[in-house]
Amino acid sequence: MRKLSSENFVYKMSAENPPVMTVKPRKTILIQTQDGFGGAIKRDDDPFPTIDMERVNQTTGPIFIEGAEPGDTLVVDIKNIVLPKQGVTTIIPSFGALKEQFSREWKKVRAIRAGRVIFPGGIRLPVHPVIGTIGVAPAQGTVGNLYPGPHGGNLDVKDITKGARVYLPVFVPGALFSLGDGKAVMGDGETNGVGIEVSMKATVRFDLIKDKPIRRPRLENATHKITIASAANLEDASKTALNDMIDLLVEETVLTKEEAYAMLGAIADIKIANVVDPEVTVRVAVPKYVFAQGRKKKVRN
Amino acid sequence: MRKLSSENFVYKMSAENPPVMTVKPRKTILIQTQDGFGGAIKRDDDPFPTIDMERVNQTTGPIFIEGAEPGDTLVVDIKNIVLPKQGVTTIIPSFGALKEQFSREWKKVRAIRAGRVIFPGGIRLPVHPVIGTIGVAPAQGTVGNLYPGPHGGNLDVKDITKGARVYLPVFVPGALFSLGDGKAVMGDGETNGVGIEVSMKATVRFDLIKDKPIRRPRLENATHKITIASAANLEDASKTALNDMIDLLVEETVLTKEEAYAMLGAIADIKIANVVDPEVTVRVAVPKYVFAQGRKKKVRN
Repeated sequence: MRKLSSENFVYKMSAENPPVMTVKPRKTILIQTQDGFGGAIKRDDDPFPTIDMERVNQTTGPIFIEGAEPGDTLVVDIKNIVLPKQGVTTIIPSFGALKEQFSREWKKVRAIRAGRVIFPGGIRLPVHPVIGTIGVAPAQGTVGNLYPGPHGGNLDVKDITKGARVYLPVFVPGALFSLGDGKAVMGDGETNGVGIEVSMKATVRFDLIKDKPIRRPRLENATHKITIASAANLEDASKTALNDMIDLLVEETVLTKEEAYAMLGAIADIKIANVVDPEVTVRVAVPKYVFAQGRKKKVRN
Repeated sequence: MRKLSSENFVYKMSAENPPVMTVKPRKTILIQTQDGFGGAIKRDDDPFPTIDMERVNQTTGPIFIEGAEPGDTLVVDIKNIVLPKQGVTTIIPSFGALKEQFSREWKKVRAIRAGRVIFPGGIRLPVHPVIGTIGVAPAQGTVGNLYPGPHGGNLDVKDITKGARVYLPVFVPGALFSLGDGKAVMGDGETNGVGIEVSMKATVRFDLIKDKPIRRPRLENATHKITIASAANLEDASKTALNDMIDLLVEETVLTKEEAYAMLGAIADIKIANVVDPEVTVRVAVPKYVFAQGRKKKVRN
């Protein structure tokens, strides 16, 4: 299996970034990443790093996917995520959901042992590895890795873990994919602006769906289909993710638009993915059995 | 077991509502409720009812809890919820997360059979009964049952189901508790403004925690402790629910305020409970094992 080292990284996603590797569809590769701080905090007594929000969440890449063209959908299967032996959590002044109250720098290195992250007082959280930032070059211009958007980026969706199939729009030839910003475990909303930040070894498999554009990232796992949207506020992000799910239900099932809307009122699972970034992110999940039971029957001639 | 019939109901929570029953703490009663439309839609060809938002979500009660005084906490254990054989879903013009797009009246009666709600195309959703509106008389004035708030009210939190222990602040003598607005199943956010609306028979047990005020409703179930907050927007509701959870972690575990904040970034489960009411609601859940593992050790003399 080919490997891509974490030395090949970017702080922003852009068509102008030269690719560091070319991969064919249906190939699996191993991507090594640095943590969101570029590994600057290794011990509790390391000085608090100077944080430039234009230089965080480095993503390894970009990777040129052979044959990817604007209008295609890039399929990324997260096959595995290997964690290191420790991660770090921080409070960064002027960043986080409660930044008005928590204005002092603070950091702690957390050990990771036997599949658990070790907290004070004997609290042990089972690891749940998350890829925080994953995406492609945007349609236009450059997007820093602090930002989520239609190209993916800093989505901080907990469901982007082992077993997830992530769909990303392709906006530029080769897609120019990259990922990073790993977490050993992360809460919804990424409340204090970070999870347990880690370097990662992520095994991913690429594929392409030709000539089938999507507007924004979405994903599926063993149990759910999930739409994801980012906006200036949570209400607008919710509306977009809900509308995308209505479109998906109408496309794939017998439900009318009204029935699909009412289905969301009955079964949608709506989480705040990030409430801290320059744009906030909401994800809407619907169980796959709804799609399976309600799917359009094919008419045979 | 004493029963309270759905004929005893209110459209608003207020200290001025005369109690219809008095119950002692540690007693269990059965409360019958009408659906949120007062049973106005029984068949698909019933006319769409005229909906006065001041006269929806009728709650059965109010119940005077003997000995409840301002500054106490009312404990309500949801022991059981029995559903009828059908429910109703609607699209109400000018109400719902996507009201700009769905401006026409629409309604469907849904059969409930063998623990499943029956949808078009053969889709069957397992029932998950929810008490949508539950609360006490507010500290001051009157709050209509369309509104959530510190007194509870129209919270639409999916976790308020069988097995939940709901904590409500007591603001007036006797608390003046009521509940209603049942759902056979409901999605997070209550996207189209309703779930599968049903009448219910809810079995609840009351208890009091004397002289221990809480600011807002919270709850726990077998696996999680949950804080709930409502506000004009989802960001503010999130902040309040997160702050309440930090206070709870600091009170009950060895975590400092900073450690508790960072714990939320690692493990919080944050859902949008309602994104349609005049105030929106967010709930933040943390697994109980975090509280158990991290609890303050008592010092023995």
